Amino acid sequence: MTVYLHDIPLPEAQSRLEAALASAGLWGVLGVEEIPLDENALGRVLAEAVWAKISSPHYHASAMDGFAVRSVETTGAMPNDPLILEYHPEGAASYVDTGDPLPSWADAVIPIENVEPVDEKGNPSPDPRHPSGIRIRASVTPWQHVRSMGEDMVATQLVLPAGHILRPVDLGAIAACGHDQVIVARKPRVAILPTGTELVPIGQPVGPGDIIEFNSLVLASQVNEWGGKATRYPITRDDFIAICHNVRAAAQEYDLILLNAGSSVGSEDFSARVVAELGELLVHGVAVRPGHPVIIGMIHKDTPDAHQSLQAGSSASKIPVIGVPGYPVSAALTGEIFVEPLLARWLGREPARPDEIKAQLTRKVTSPAGDDDYMRVAIGRVGKKLLAAPLSRGSGVITSLVRADGIAILPRGSQGLAAGAEVNVRLYRPISQLECTIFAIGSHDLTLDLMAQFLAARGRRLASANVGSLGGLVALRRGEAHLAGSHLLDPETGGYNISYIRQYLPGVPVKVVALVGRKQGLLVSKGNPKSIHSLEGLNRPDVHFINRQRGAGTRVLLDYELGKLGIAPEAIQGYNQEEYTHLAVAAAISSGRADCGLGIAAAAQALGLDFVPLFEERYELVILEEFFGVALLDPLFDVLEDPAFRQAVAELPGYDVTRMGELVAEMS
Amino acid sequence: MTVYLHDIPLPEAQSRLEAALASAGLWGVLGVEEIPLDENALGRVLAEAVWAKISSPHYHASAMDGFAVRSVETTGAMPNDPLILEYHPEGAASYVDTGDPLPSWADAVIPIENVEPVDEKGNPSPDPRHPSGIRIRASVTPWQHVRSMGEDMVATQLVLPAGHILRPVDLGAIAACGHDQVIVARKPRVAILPTGTELVPIGQPVGPGDIIEFNSLVLASQVNEWGGKATRYPITRDDFIAICHNVRAAAQEYDLILLNAGSSVGSEDFSARVVAELGELLVHGVAVRPGHPVIIGMIHKDTPDAHQSLQAGSSASKIPVIGVPGYPVSAALTGEIFVEPLLARWLGREPARPDEIKAQLTRKVTSPAGDDDYMRVAIGRVGKKLLAAPLSRGSGVITSLVRADGIAILPRGSQGLAAGAEVNVRLYRPISQLECTIFAIGSHDLTLDLMAQFLAARGRRLASANVGSLGGLVALRRGEAHLAGSHLLDPETGGYNISYIRQYLPGVPVKVVALVGRKQGLLVSKGNPKSIHSLEGLNRPDVHFINRQRGAGTRVLLDYELGKLGIAPEAIQGYNQEEYTHLAVAAAISSGRADCGLGIAAAAQALGLDFVPLFEERYELVILEEFFGVALLDPLFDVLEDPAFRQAVAELPGYDVTRMGELVAEMS
Repeated sequence: MTVYLHDIPLPEAQSRLEAALASAGLWGVLGVEEIPLDENALGRVLAEAVWAKISSPHYHASAMDGFAVRSVETTGAMPNDPLILEYHPEGAASYVDTGDPLPSWADAVIPIENVEPVDEKGNPSPDPRHPSGIRIRASVTPWQHVRSMGEDMVATQLVLPAGHILRPVDLGAIAACGHDQVIVARKPRVAILPTGTELVPIGQPVGPGDIIEFNSLVLASQVNEWGGKATRYPITRDDFIAICHNVRAAAQEYDLILLNAGSSVGSEDFSARVVAELGELLVHGVAVRPGHPVIIGMIHKDTPDAHQSLQAGSSASKIPVIGVPGYPVSAALTGEIFVEPLLARWLGREPARPDEIKAQLTRKVTSPAGDDDYMRVAIGRVGKKLLAAPLSRGSGVITSLVRADGIAILPRGSQGLAAGAEVNVRLYRPISQLECTIFAIGSHDLTLDLMAQFLAARGRRLASANVGSLGGLVALRRGEAHLAGSHLLDPETGGYNISYIRQYLPGVPVKVVALVGRKQGLLVSKGNPKSIHSLEGLNRPDVHFINRQRGAGTRVLLDYELGKLGIAPEAIQGYNQEEYTHLAVAAAISSGRADCGLGIAAAAQALGLDFVPLFEERYELVILEEFFGVALLDPLFDVLEDPAFRQAVAELPGYDVTRMGELVAEMS
Repeated sequence: MTVYLHDIPLPEAQSRLEAALASAGLWGVLGVEEIPLDENALGRVLAEAVWAKISSPHYHASAMDGFAVRSVETTGAMPNDPLILEYHPEGAASYVDTGDPLPSWADAVIPIENVEPVDEKGNPSPDPRHPSGIRIRASVTPWQHVRSMGEDMVATQLVLPAGHILRPVDLGAIAACGHDQVIVARKPRVAILPTGTELVPIGQPVGPGDIIEFNSLVLASQVNEWGGKATRYPITRDDFIAICHNVRAAAQEYDLILLNAGSSVGSEDFSARVVAELGELLVHGVAVRPGHPVIIGMIHKDTPDAHQSLQAGSSASKIPVIGVPGYPVSAALTGEIFVEPLLARWLGREPARPDEIKAQLTRKVTSPAGDDDYMRVAIGRVGKKLLAAPLSRGSGVITSLVRADGIAILPRGSQGLAAGAEVNVRLYRPISQLECTIFAIGSHDLTLDLMAQFLAARGRRLASANVGSLGGLVALRRGEAHLAGSHLLDPETGGYNISYIRQYLPGVPVKVVALVGRKQGLLVSKGNPKSIHSLEGLNRPDVHFINRQRGAGTRVLLDYELGKLGIAPEAIQGYNQEEYTHLAVAAAISSGRADCGLGIAAAAQALGLDFVPLFEERYELVILEEFFGVALLDPLFDVLEDPAFRQAVAELPGYDVTRMGELVAEMS
């Protein structure tokens, strides 16, 4: 059987699933259970409304420590013309603690601090809680300082509607109105079946071609977080019979099967065939990116007499299966798009509705016109602008989800958006957290990772985008970042950054603060097998170079030094292959993709490469002046002064921290 | 020992606690543990930053199903001038599935859909994945359709900072970069000790003076939700020695003790004495409302040699104790104000920072000038205004927290705010949920509770405030609600609402929609022991009446009928005692506070009272015309047409649903 992928629009995929579930009797709460009202009820979803069984309070209660009185007998008491009420359990005054029932003869309470307990002679009583009488200097109104029955809840009143997710205070209210059990939706049981011969469980050694199987962990955690109960199956090899066997077995015990990977049309993509074999394939391919090779189907359960079982109401005869794509971003988004709303329906709660904000795109993006494109973005406020910086679009880049503050959906029909365009962003974080984000853009340096760690401990997130030193200055001019890391050599002066700031940020007030001095040099494989010791070696025919992108400070340095040596870029193999970070250059060498590249010592050490030091340079932070003295950036300056941070940086190879934090220049 | 309560400002209370913890070595992460990277890691807080152990991908991987090639060998391929590359595992073309490692000789992949597999003669190959060669009609660039090593994460790179709360995608990223364990903060262990002779466990029968002990459930759920591990102790009676014993025992095993109630200065409030006996009382009384009788102290642990133990770093010699006030709102807010930030510190995460919005107060509020006043509010958008409606201020009214959308803090120094004033509200719900709130204000009817239940199933929250029919019309005029329930009898016409709308809403376009016809009558105790059969009985000396507030439709009806009968209000005992809802009137009679009141049959039935029917009246919804056809209110009209809703209302006694949903009048 050959299977083809036909992408259909998301709403159609959702409505096919809904129709299939409805006809199987599965488009609603799966079942209810009565559970004890204890801590385990937290987060469960009410399957039935809670109505007050008793009133709260269920009796008239004193609201204060004091004396119960008949209000009418206090009439006329004045500061200069007090009354004395005789102490007696049957009136006119009787001591009550907060929460005590009001005596039946009383209708008000006078707080203890407003009375003078007296003895028979009218002198202060030695036992203020059992005096002979109380002297009062003000009257009270009926029911004053009394919590009357039903003040909080009256029996029969609605306390919480069905579909409500139980919070701590809800549990208290339910207990207060007389319940000790609560009827909740049972947790949908979800089986997660990872398939793939190339998969290796977490914690085992991996070689080329091995893929660490963690999608099931992400999906299971999502399911549990959304109120379901997930079970992860062991990995099944790419074996049609074995997968069929396991899916059929899971169908007997679970409400939903997530069959991970094998959802496309490759030679070992069996998911669609498995679903067709065991039931009905409803959808193969949805027009969303990342994630389009999604499969939706219904699997038959092996019941002795499915028809009879259905009539008896015992259970449905089919269960849904979702074939989840294998790329991690696709898998996680498939969870959000298909699994979360389904669990919401089965639990009888509202689907998650993330807060949305509008933000301005920091750069142009393109998008496939036929798909809803789920673009991950980092959000931050720079001055008055709320900015959305697109993160990696790759469906294999799970860090794009880790770093994302939200998702901007570029709808079908759109082929992209210009820089500065307004986008709606569905947020992953509370809005308040976005206001703690420091946007750094520009050159990449490993100390920024360390700085992010130190800033996190001070309540700030550092969102750094690596666009090279020049790109950072351009972003600052457009007001798209608070600061830029830069190490642009001025060939004429031998200084750094100043002449570029004059050129690219004319009239924009900035301060330049020293971060580190660092060594630039050649990154080469361990042992330097090709014996490359200077830039003069780069144009050798046996040497493959890996470059940094245009606008990167390292690229400026390279081009300047090549010019001095009179080496033409065309003579260097790989000159046009560009990477955006030092670590990416190091990774290219480590993997054998290239023999050498220009970069910093720390990147070489990180990946076990050798380093041929060539130049010293200064890496500085260019900070918009308007953000000096602003609370958002204060922790940054705090970090620059922190001896622990300086020491951590100094321990990286090739770094000089002696000038860290110095104000290098102020420009306006 | 006599204990006095000295309220101190909140910041001072917090800094005393912080100083005491710091000197005990407890102002930081309590401990770390290494746990397996599985579903149970969800929600845990990273105690150490996660740095990539391996790169992801850890090899060059094909990003597509297709053929690995040397990009240089594809140069020159054109649509009308194709090239054929020979199939061979050592090049020039070799089949790869998505995720397969790129052969070492290759540097690009051509997707299978872009090639024509051919046999030796150049005809289409019978085995497209193992052809003799591939015909291509376009060149590829180096590294096209390849996920190069480190595309997602490069070994040694920062993946997540310490203090991060683990989400599903984070677990995936941590696995992807080579970890199978994760180092997290250990969960702080919190003992919750309920004390009070008057307390009764949830689920046991209660009599007057018995208080259902549910604060420990609320506090334990809060602690667990915030990342701690709570243990609820059984109830301890008000016995100084017993409480001391249990607190001392708990101090050996837990990191924090929450001693609930007994925190004030009543005759059986032992908490402060217990803390002073076992350690040091730092704070007794904090200037916040509700919640001011908070106690903070440090308890000594019984260690054989506390000094030695401390030096060995094994554990501290003291632990903090918080005396939590007994009123449920005070208890829950004490959790939010003191326990959450403390757990955050012990877990090394940021304290919760709820989103804040600005909203307009719907009515004037007063506030004690010396306290920070935590006012619970319902939030909703009515037209362009975001409104904050103050809920009950009572510290015993836990439903005020259940219904609250957020907290507006009236700071010390403020004695209150005027209606319309702008307040900052710390939100309990996502902002998006607030946009689903329908604000109903005006007369109370039991069908509104039912309607709330049916609306909840349709994704709407009904926030109803009971201010009486007239109050509802006034609120509509001020644009403070979408609709008002009203049953105002026009004595001249015998009709309802219209003349009042003309008078109170001149020039405001509204539509009037029928909800129900209902019976008004006298609510009396079971068996009608005082034989009250008409309003003529109300001025009997042995009859105690309970009234509704001025402006309530029921009050208008009463005053009209009393006027017809020539009965003076002064002749009725209890005429000036007002309740705001039918159920509150019924509760007053049920508790013996009054003999009778005017109200609806359903309220009588709800509390097991007898009902003497007297009048028929119409209860209508007055809806601002601007909200007709608006998505927010659509579900409301849907509910009015829902046979299930009509039937549920018809099953309440005294209701007539025949006109439900009819448009009664349009006024402009």
